[in-house]
Amino acid sequence: MAKYSIGIDFGTESARSVLVRIEDGKEVATSVYQYPDGVIDDVLPGTNVRLEHDWALQNPKDYLEAIKYTIPEILKVSGVSPEDVIGIGIDFTSCTILPIDKEGIPLCMKEEYKNNPHSWVKLWKHHAAQPEADRINEVARQRKEGFLTRYGGKISSEWFFPKSLQILNEAPEIYEAADRIIEGADWIVLQLTGKEVRNSCTAGYKAIWDPDTGFPSSDFFKDVDPRFERVVEEKMSQRIYPLGSRAGGLTSYMAKLTGLREGTSVAVGNVDAHVSVPAATVTEGGKMVMIMGTSICHMMVDKNFRPVPGACGIVKDGILPKYYGYEAGQSAVGDIFAWFVKNSVPLSYEEEAKKKGIDVHKLLEEKASKIKPGESGLLALDWWNGNRSILVDADLMGLVLGYTLETKPEEVYRCLIEATAFGTYKIINSFEENGVRIGELYACGGLPEKNKLLMQIYCDVSGREIKIPLSSQTPALGSAMFGAVAAGKSRGGYDSIVEAAEKMAHLKDERYYPNMENHRLYQSIYAEYEKLHDYFGRGENDVMKRLKKMKKEVKKR
Amino acid sequence: MAKYSIGIDFGTESARSVLVRIEDGKEVATSVYQYPDGVIDDVLPGTNVRLEHDWALQNPKDYLEAIKYTIPEILKVSGVSPEDVIGIGIDFTSCTILPIDKEGIPLCMKEEYKNNPHSWVKLWKHHAAQPEADRINEVARQRKEGFLTRYGGKISSEWFFPKSLQILNEAPEIYEAADRIIEGADWIVLQLTGKEVRNSCTAGYKAIWDPDTGFPSSDFFKDVDPRFERVVEEKMSQRIYPLGSRAGGLTSYMAKLTGLREGTSVAVGNVDAHVSVPAATVTEGGKMVMIMGTSICHMMVDKNFRPVPGACGIVKDGILPKYYGYEAGQSAVGDIFAWFVKNSVPLSYEEEAKKKGIDVHKLLEEKASKIKPGESGLLALDWWNGNRSILVDADLMGLVLGYTLETKPEEVYRCLIEATAFGTYKIINSFEENGVRIGELYACGGLPEKNKLLMQIYCDVSGREIKIPLSSQTPALGSAMFGAVAAGKSRGGYDSIVEAAEKMAHLKDERYYPNMENHRLYQSIYAEYEKLHDYFGRGENDVMKRLKKMKKEVKKR
Repeated sequence: MAKYSIGIDFGTESARSVLVRIEDGKEVATSVYQYPDGVIDDVLPGTNVRLEHDWALQNPKDYLEAIKYTIPEILKVSGVSPEDVIGIGIDFTSCTILPIDKEGIPLCMKEEYKNNPHSWVKLWKHHAAQPEADRINEVARQRKEGFLTRYGGKISSEWFFPKSLQILNEAPEIYEAADRIIEGADWIVLQLTGKEVRNSCTAGYKAIWDPDTGFPSSDFFKDVDPRFERVVEEKMSQRIYPLGSRAGGLTSYMAKLTGLREGTSVAVGNVDAHVSVPAATVTEGGKMVMIMGTSICHMMVDKNFRPVPGACGIVKDGILPKYYGYEAGQSAVGDIFAWFVKNSVPLSYEEEAKKKGIDVHKLLEEKASKIKPGESGLLALDWWNGNRSILVDADLMGLVLGYTLETKPEEVYRCLIEATAFGTYKIINSFEENGVRIGELYACGGLPEKNKLLMQIYCDVSGREIKIPLSSQTPALGSAMFGAVAAGKSRGGYDSIVEAAEKMAHLKDERYYPNMENHRLYQSIYAEYEKLHDYFGRGENDVMKRLKKMKKEVKKR
Repeated sequence: MAKYSIGIDFGTESARSVLVRIEDGKEVATSVYQYPDGVIDDVLPGTNVRLEHDWALQNPKDYLEAIKYTIPEILKVSGVSPEDVIGIGIDFTSCTILPIDKEGIPLCMKEEYKNNPHSWVKLWKHHAAQPEADRINEVARQRKEGFLTRYGGKISSEWFFPKSLQILNEAPEIYEAADRIIEGADWIVLQLTGKEVRNSCTAGYKAIWDPDTGFPSSDFFKDVDPRFERVVEEKMSQRIYPLGSRAGGLTSYMAKLTGLREGTSVAVGNVDAHVSVPAATVTEGGKMVMIMGTSICHMMVDKNFRPVPGACGIVKDGILPKYYGYEAGQSAVGDIFAWFVKNSVPLSYEEEAKKKGIDVHKLLEEKASKIKPGESGLLALDWWNGNRSILVDADLMGLVLGYTLETKPEEVYRCLIEATAFGTYKIINSFEENGVRIGELYACGGLPEKNKLLMQIYCDVSGREIKIPLSSQTPALGSAMFGAVAAGKSRGGYDSIVEAAEKMAHLKDERYYPNMENHRLYQSIYAEYEKLHDYFGRGENDVMKRLKKMKKEVKKR
């Protein structure tokens, strides 16, 4: 009998479970569950408590409901017997953390804490911990902490310690009440197996952990804030498990809830972007995997540790065993196009799209594909949501230059795509300049499926071939692959993720080849992009930061 | 019996005649005539001849039809007797020129020339003579011609000699056939009076003429091009008449055509912006008149000659007698808002405006008026059509900075208004820094009537009171005032434009006062505007010019 593994991908708005055949990676059933509370950024559910600007929370109940709904569904649809499901892997957005009590119950599920926003899940895009990140960075720089080189010189406000410190600062009673503060990925594994088994990926990428040196010292945390000295000992676990490890077996409670067998192997948690790398067939260096959606994560591995400026994380064994995993990113990509379509497309275009029976994105793509590189005279900086790599600066903002009275919406649309491609190219170049070679690109996520023009522009700008994974749900597939590895060969799975990738991961026949004439034109425009990038991004003119500061001050009045 | 004067304002799309009572400036009748051929920028009327990019022509027949239609109309509507109409003044767009034969007939009206675009009227916004302007500027700089200081250091491609040189370069046979090349304003006066009586305003502002030193030397023109040496002697007139002069009396032919009396006094021609100054009650220094529409012209007078960088013309007696007339300008203002509304306002806003029964401009104004200075974080450079003052550079382009995923259309709209206000403020400051004091502002034109938010922003940015003329058609009123001066006191008019302004020009009671708290906020944002202005406009980063050059090259392929 064929054996199967389940991958569960916990995203920002929904969770998705996929049942995958282990011998060849065939995805036999998929089920998606939309989180009823979605992203909580206005009012806490069931309360009148309003959130401040920059907050983004989630309800952990939504995750459990997703498991309860999707796993029975894929079993039912596929007709696969629970006996033949040998492994489960999960991936999660990150850094997404929550405070829990001794029993693992999220504090927000408890009557006494539910009105305090700090008791809820802080979603990856919760951006209200910037002062805490600033403090952590300041102390790290003063102390010349070596870990900074692994994180592009800066700890992001999105990460574990800034978010935890924000709880301590603004709700010390919640910090106090928390037996643990834990990543969503690890909390799900705790729910599935009954064991706190933290994974090396989120620990490495989001909590400044390293397999050789561990977490930052308590001295460091003490310097940040004396109350924060023992955060690791008191609120976390120091036992971190490598990716592909078996966290444990499914509990009987969870077996009942899902219809799976008790004891089914559960892999340690993983992150959506990182787990996509082997699912995109990549198990060696020289290849960059781009997870392209609302934002882009750029993932690659290399045998060597090279401190690349702007890599927001370099973690040993963080993506694949025996490699340093490199992560970089652009904080808004698809989000910029969605913003544009919502805010800047005129009525006449809506009418034209309607007449043609296509959506506005498609109409813009059609029109924009007729424009040659350089023909619009427009150039943008893709900083609508700050700049993650390579500047690691959330206060930067977007710019468009080259408007004339003849400028058309499709020209602006194309220049926004080009700007995001330049952003990726800047990252590629930063890696190559620092000795991490990137020969070819792999594109996963929603954008490659939807926008061929965008793919061709990325290809032409970077001058590199782009390959596309066969699966349109690489995170879930990757999780299922890790589920198969957690089960191991003895139970019908695989003994390594490389082996799993060979059998279970595939590419599409379709790929993109660069038009080198366009590449040449883009080289000139990119030179201009770089000049503006440095002028506005590296302190020569901090106008964006000053305007952002003023904006905050004026809003406060 | 009350006496009357007629002002005819020849605009870009239409001409307007107004019948004005001389004793108090009451506008008793108005008639507008749309030019059937409008702006010719695609195909020559009655031919298959296509025009190149940047061309803009007009048909002089439209001007004559306008006279024939509008003057009888205002006489009829008002019931005023032709006996009581003692003067006619006209103003015209400028620099708008045409080649004519010995009889004053435009070459484009002649069968043998009508297929040659160079035989037609070159409208002010014909921008195809840039190479000629470049050549003229190059030679002027080499020869250290003193006249450059009167024109902000640069001769514009819109002006008389670049346009004439373009005819010589591209159609020497037309240049040869032209007995004269003449401003539209002077050609109309020639039609009305039978006499070539050129005016000091267009000569001074557009043809490098000065009452003391005359035109540039034939040596200069020879250096520009040997064939151009005698352009002044052969194609122009060296007898230039001051504003307010009586050019002559109406011919019998024109009297028949219009219904006016033969011999009615006709004033020398004038320019729409310049003639608005006395119509806005301004007859002394310290006051800047802004003619605000698709673009802005900034007009002021001062007793002294001060070379102000960015003043695109400083002409003795060019606006009012005994004063140096200063002109500066922004090449796109209302045009930018129109561009924005056409290209960047989403469907949902169109629907909301429709539901509220207002137009989209009004909806944006409503929403934008709720935003405080600095609250959006946005900042723009208002260079959608290049920068006239103070940089005199047509190759500059627009910029918007500060976009985030939360940026709303009304925020962009407001930041565009603010950018144009900063552009005006930059001009004001350039004048003041060079010794030309500007105490208060006067706003004429279409925009002040339509957009109160815009007026308040200009007021707050500049920190100056703004007054509004009572008349909504200041150019035509100003022309009628000069008509009354041409007639003179002996015929029932006035002996000077100052006297005419005292009686005929009035202000609205409504005026704008600066909110000094907003002014303070705007001072910070303006400091950022200035920094970007200099960075992109003064050679530190010529990215806009390089992109514009690339755009032209790519388009050519």
